[in-house]
Amino acid sequence: MTMVVVTIMPKKGVLDPQGQAVQGALAHMGFGDVLDVRVGKRIEIEMRGHDPAAQVTKMCEDLLANDLIEDFHVEMPG
Amino acid sequence: MTMVVVTIMPKKGVLDPQGQAVQGALAHMGFGDVLDVRVGKRIEIEMRGHDPAAQVTKMCEDLLANDLIEDFHVEMPG
Repeated sequence: MTMVVVTIMPKKGVLDPQGQAVQGALAHMGFGDVLDVRVGKRIEIEMRGHDPAAQVTKMCEDLLANDLIEDFHVEMPG
Repeated sequence: MTMVVVTIMPKKGVLDPQGQAVQGALAHMGFGDVLDVRVGKRIEIEMRGHDPAAQVTKMCEDLLANDLIEDFHVEMPG
């Protein structure tokens, strides 16, 4: 078994309404030192079989990430 | 300016419907080597000021994470 971690973030320049909402809420709560917030996803996938990183990269291209507005990164921790 | 990265994942043992949905979709698409999927959040926060990691930990406790069902982790990359 192998753990593969996918990070998916909005591309730079793409509007991130979830990040803006969090930033607004934090400012409202008095956290005045926040300059920018971007919200993305972390997906942990437990895999068996051959070349798990390549399999997960294919999953990102086919399903997990929206290439128009998101960047993804695949890593195997440890 | 300092970048602080927050990772928020469903606690072990807590049902993760989003992860189950992704796992089901992947199986349906023929990715048969997937054993488990957990979906969480990654939040990138650009900070100024004193002790950014401590400030962001407070944000997690007060707003970003739901301590009942989620674990969070704060790190400063680089």
